Amino acid sequence: MQHARPLPAYLVNRYHGWKATIYTENRSWYRRLAEDGQHPRSMVISCCDSRVHVTAIFGADQGEFFIHRNIANLVPPFNPDGHHHGTSAAVEYAITGLKVAHLIVLGHSGCGGVEGCYNMCSGRAPELEESSSFVGRWMDILRPGYAALPEGDDATRKTALEKASVVISLENLMTFPFVKSAVESERLSIHGLWNDIGEGGLEAYDPQKESFYPI
Amino acid sequence: MQHARPLPAYLVNRYHGWKATIYTENRSWYRRLAEDGQHPRSMVISCCDSRVHVTAIFGADQGEFFIHRNIANLVPPFNPDGHHHGTSAAVEYAITGLKVAHLIVLGHSGCGGVEGCYNMCSGRAPELEESSSFVGRWMDILRPGYAALPEGDDATRKTALEKASVVISLENLMTFPFVKSAVESERLSIHGLWNDIGEGGLEAYDPQKESFYPI
Amino acid sequence: MQHARPLPAYLVNRYHGWKATIYTENRSWYRRLAEDGQHPRSMVISCCDSRVHVTAIFGADQGEFFIHRNIANLVPPFNPDGHHHGTSAAVEYAITGLKVAHLIVLGHSGCGGVEGCYNMCSGRAPELEESSSFVGRWMDILRPGYAALPEGDDATRKTALEKASVVISLENLMTFPFVKSAVESERLSIHGLWNDIGEGGLEAYDPQKESFYPI
Amino acid sequence: MQHARPLPAYLVNRYHGWKATIYTENRSWYRRLAEDGQHPRSMVISCCDSRVHVTAIFGADQGEFFIHRNIANLVPPFNPDGHHHGTSAAVEYAITGLKVAHLIVLGHSGCGGVEGCYNMCSGRAPELEESSSFVGRWMDILRPGYAALPEGDDATRKTALEKASVVISLENLMTFPFVKSAVESERLSIHGLWNDIGEGGLEAYDPQKESFYPI
Repeated sequence: MQHARPLPAYLVNRYHGWKATIYTENRSWYRRLAEDGQHPRSMVISCCDSRVHVTAIFGADQGEFFIHRNIANLVPPFNPDGHHHGTSAAVEYAITGLKVAHLIVLGHSGCGGVEGCYNMCSGRAPELEESSSFVGRWMDILRPGYAALPEGDDATRKTALEKASVVISLENLMTFPFVKSAVESERLSIHGLWNDIGEGGLEAYDPQKESFYPI
Repeated sequence: MQHARPLPAYLVNRYHGWKATIYTENRSWYRRLAEDGQHPRSMVISCCDSRVHVTAIFGADQGEFFIHRNIANLVPPFNPDGHHHGTSAAVEYAITGLKVAHLIVLGHSGCGGVEGCYNMCSGRAPELEESSSFVGRWMDILRPGYAALPEGDDATRKTALEKASVVISLENLMTFPFVKSAVESERLSIHGLWNDIGEGGLEAYDPQKESFYPI
Repeated sequence: MQHARPLPAYLVNRYHGWKATIYTENRSWYRRLAEDGQHPRSMVISCCDSRVHVTAIFGADQGEFFIHRNIANLVPPFNPDGHHHGTSAAVEYAITGLKVAHLIVLGHSGCGGVEGCYNMCSGRAPELEESSSFVGRWMDILRPGYAALPEGDDATRKTALEKASVVISLENLMTFPFVKSAVESERLSIHGLWNDIGEGGLEAYDPQKESFYPI
Repeated sequence: MQHARPLPAYLVNRYHGWKATIYTENRSWYRRLAEDGQHPRSMVISCCDSRVHVTAIFGADQGEFFIHRNIANLVPPFNPDGHHHGTSAAVEYAITGLKVAHLIVLGHSGCGGVEGCYNMCSGRAPELEESSSFVGRWMDILRPGYAALPEGDDATRKTALEKASVVISLENLMTFPFVKSAVESERLSIHGLWNDIGEGGLEAYDPQKESFYPI
């Protein structure tokens, strides 16, 4: 693997700073985490977007959240076809291995992946329709959400599609037998959230009203 | 989606605390991020493990790192077969869309996914060999790493396999045409790291020596 | 311009060393910065003093801070008289052009400019009172700070005047309509800091207590 | 000054990291700098641009460079009219107070200030012509450079104007009696440089050929 390069010096310096302060102050906890293993209470599925910061929002420290991050916080439907399924593997590991008590799907405003899906489905991004587009094929998971969008202006519909990405992921999660059985035996609760980046807002999905409300 | 439940109150409380303090103190930055979009310098691919905290280690705040997290920080080989590929989509988005300058693969000690792979390959976890095991099929990506392990005790070999998960991901990244071309035109540099959770250690991959060294 | 001389060889040598190492390791980032432009999160106004090193203190790399440095980190009051105003131009560019989210004024211990002002105002540096003294006329900005100093020994009063240079600059910043409006619409936050060079200390201005506290 | 806000937490953390590592390792030097004062060998005048990092390029540490940074690294002509002149004050302090041996003017590629001047002078930025524009009035210093540009495409002419900003600043420096006399008595040498951000290039002004050459 001859292409790997040294880490930029500013990150090396910052790491040394972290080691000398935050690590040192919390060494007993890090050692216990290493020796005793992780026991996270919750799994979070969020977007890769650099503006999403789930531990900060919830004041979480190392050990609390098992976090899977992918484009647009999507969960594909259950499909045990023997191929590599990174998201499904993460969910399986969290539910059957770690036995987390909560599974939170966290969407957000201004999601580039959702916008790509919106443009693709409305005919404005033909390059995403090509079979070689990984982003396009990944966002296919959200196509049913586009089909169900109400009329409206683009901005309103994109926000609605961001929230649909949360709901569709929750629905797809329930197609996994081990998720369904954990939910039905009340050993797992699932939650849908949407974060407004600019305003610091957080909305939760209300299954009765089939809509999101500010918490 | 009738199964969604309200967020646990302790998380609601912490969110309100964050909103009243950290968000409020940084509102101007969050608004700029929302209005101006993200311009992350680096992508990080790390494990979902709750003990890994890449922003803390590097003193990073929102906006700096585009983060993909999956089991064992694995990147599958390039395979544009039209199916859902969450990791490949995230890499494609970061390189061709965001044009990040660095791509860091971050492994860690005590990785449960790597341990599962080790047990599977050594015949101690037959359930992971089943075609219906998402974790098993995901960890297939790391099989070449197991095959190349030197002799030794289990603990040493597991650590070696954790580091192999970093190197194999870097190798697989180079099978993506857009990664290869960005690396070769010197618009992207790739980096391999391994974090010792308990000791707060950080080791970097040295391509000349084909081994990791403490930074 | 016949007076320009070749760069001293030791600087040429160091530059070549930087080019072969740090530049090469970060080439992808420098190219992205060149092609994509700068998106700094913050502007810093600090002193020209060779002992002040704002990027080091904050582990910052190229692209993070838009930095204006002048004698004693001063901002003059808003005065659009059509003349050259370097500090006002830098602030205008950062706020209205780059739309930075933070503006940090960083003072420091042992500031020679502040000491000159102190001596001038206390009658010990008549040469600075001359209209031809650029340093004296620049330090006039800080005269209101001297007038408001509490009684005490010279050393204590000089330190107080260094901190006053930060507070007066923050006050003068608010006389610029574009700063005031950005602060009031919560798209800009302003911060006052004072760095103790010898002890590596950092104090922040607390507007409630109207004093500085160690962070 | 009720508008000041606490420093963002990520900067506080990074500062503590710096204090625990780089500061601690260099405490003796910082204490000496505090007790003995600064004795910088050189003054550097560079742009505020976040991509310019003069200490990095020259491997410089605290204490080496007295650094003034403004938009487009400009020095206005000598004009002792009794008003605030931040750049002139910095030059006066460095030459007559610190008696630096070198004065380096460092320009750079992709300079937004220079581009603004170019657009203003070519009629494409009328807003910069208004008397209330601080950036426009500051960039007036560079108007003679625009007038002297050779024919060519915009990109070539902008780069030429960036280099002209260095030469004009050197010429203006020589209008200051204390600079002229220091240069003529060979107690000060002045240097013009231009940094290519993306390629890490550095070019120096050759007064014989009246052009820049790579060093």
